[in-house]
Amino acid sequence: MRYKVTVSYDGSQFHGWQIQNEVRTVQEELEKCLSKIVKKQTTIHGSGRTDAKVHASRQVFHFDASLNMTCDNWYKALNALCPDDIYIQKVEEVDDDFHARYDVTSKEYCYYVNMGDYDVFNKNYVYQFNHVLDVGQMKEAASYLIGTHDFTSYNATPLDEIENQVRTLYALEITQKDDVLEFKITGTGFLRYMIRMIVGALIECGKHKLNPEDIKEKLELKTKATVPFRAPAEGLYLKRVNYD
Amino acid sequence: MRYKVTVSYDGSQFHGWQIQNEVRTVQEELEKCLSKIVKKQTTIHGSGRTDAKVHASRQVFHFDASLNMTCDNWYKALNALCPDDIYIQKVEEVDDDFHARYDVTSKEYCYYVNMGDYDVFNKNYVYQFNHVLDVGQMKEAASYLIGTHDFTSYNATPLDEIENQVRTLYALEITQKDDVLEFKITGTGFLRYMIRMIVGALIECGKHKLNPEDIKEKLELKTKATVPFRAPAEGLYLKRVNYD
Repeated sequence: MRYKVTVSYDGSQFHGWQIQNEVRTVQEELEKCLSKIVKKQTTIHGSGRTDAKVHASRQVFHFDASLNMTCDNWYKALNALCPDDIYIQKVEEVDDDFHARYDVTSKEYCYYVNMGDYDVFNKNYVYQFNHVLDVGQMKEAASYLIGTHDFTSYNATPLDEIENQVRTLYALEITQKDDVLEFKITGTGFLRYMIRMIVGALIECGKHKLNPEDIKEKLELKTKATVPFRAPAEGLYLKRVNYD
Repeated sequence: MRYKVTVSYDGSQFHGWQIQNEVRTVQEELEKCLSKIVKKQTTIHGSGRTDAKVHASRQVFHFDASLNMTCDNWYKALNALCPDDIYIQKVEEVDDDFHARYDVTSKEYCYYVNMGDYDVFNKNYVYQFNHVLDVGQMKEAASYLIGTHDFTSYNATPLDEIENQVRTLYALEITQKDDVLEFKITGTGFLRYMIRMIVGALIECGKHKLNPEDIKEKLELKTKATVPFRAPAEGLYLKRVNYD
């Protein structure tokens, strides 16, 4: 049987999703729990990686198991074993050909910037910027990035690793609530640091260090290392992974 | 010169306010910062203690220093040295006879209970109860505690340590927003574990393990160890300390 699992995690204490030696990762913690339940080493397949300190409200992964257990019992068994910064939201049975990574149709991310006073309770959950940004400039700049473009300038994946860096941004909305800016970003797929580099460039516009037109020019340059600032990880949340 | 300082801290990584050997405390961190600035060991005097993992939005302390520095410079210097889970809100010059503990007229606390699904992002910031409570019963129970009473039954300070355990609760309001209950508690002063024992007893009413009348009876008993449940520390916030 193949299972699709929706999971949330607080990224603060993780070195990201993907298993690496000697550091704590979400994938490793989940595989440890799962392997305890099925009593053999079991691999999970995530919809994609998240970086160190990045959060997820609804990341998705799949795994295969022959254990005869209802989805509700999987949900309970996994949550009973998970550490307190991981929480299973849902377990569903899916067809054998479902794949958490290959079948993704789009992903939704949010990024939060606090322009107000430092808030000790949010230190791991927003980017504490402490200054007012020009939201009008940022919105204008964002408009140049929406749609289908070659995003070579706005990510850190080397071209010899992934040659085709054309992606589609369906939405890039910026809304302000009190002192906090929320960036809602939806797209077909994201390359390494792509969201944090986009948000970083927009913040430079909000600071008047760049003009909105610079954002367009950099996009058209299609070269690496033109974006001066990558927004820090703690403000970023994987909000939803969509499938057909 | 005597200075009054308003400070917020995320209690998650502290063993409470008061200095103790071998563990990290808020008082110790603040005294380390202060002592670096004035270049000699300096003691601070808090409005009172908070327990391990309890938070503060606006705790108050005072200290004396002969350094010739404006309040704004104290504010900046302290924040530059404070760890990221402590933030100085305000520094004010006060009269030499101001005392952060003895001059308190009332204190305001809040306690948060999440009756909804477990939320990884709030694990250190609310009590995750995961079940629905009967708020009507809790409000009725709370009404018996408002006013001036001998709170011997509702705190853990031994009577041979503090004989007079009469205190006044000015307010004990319970409001619900989505799945989260907020308890707002204002009073002349609080004894050890008093708020967590009051909230714990109210939660027992919300679970129908106790009747509101039981809350009144326990109050009238004036004996220790009659309250079955102390609400956990992570839901508690010192919100404000009031002076004349």
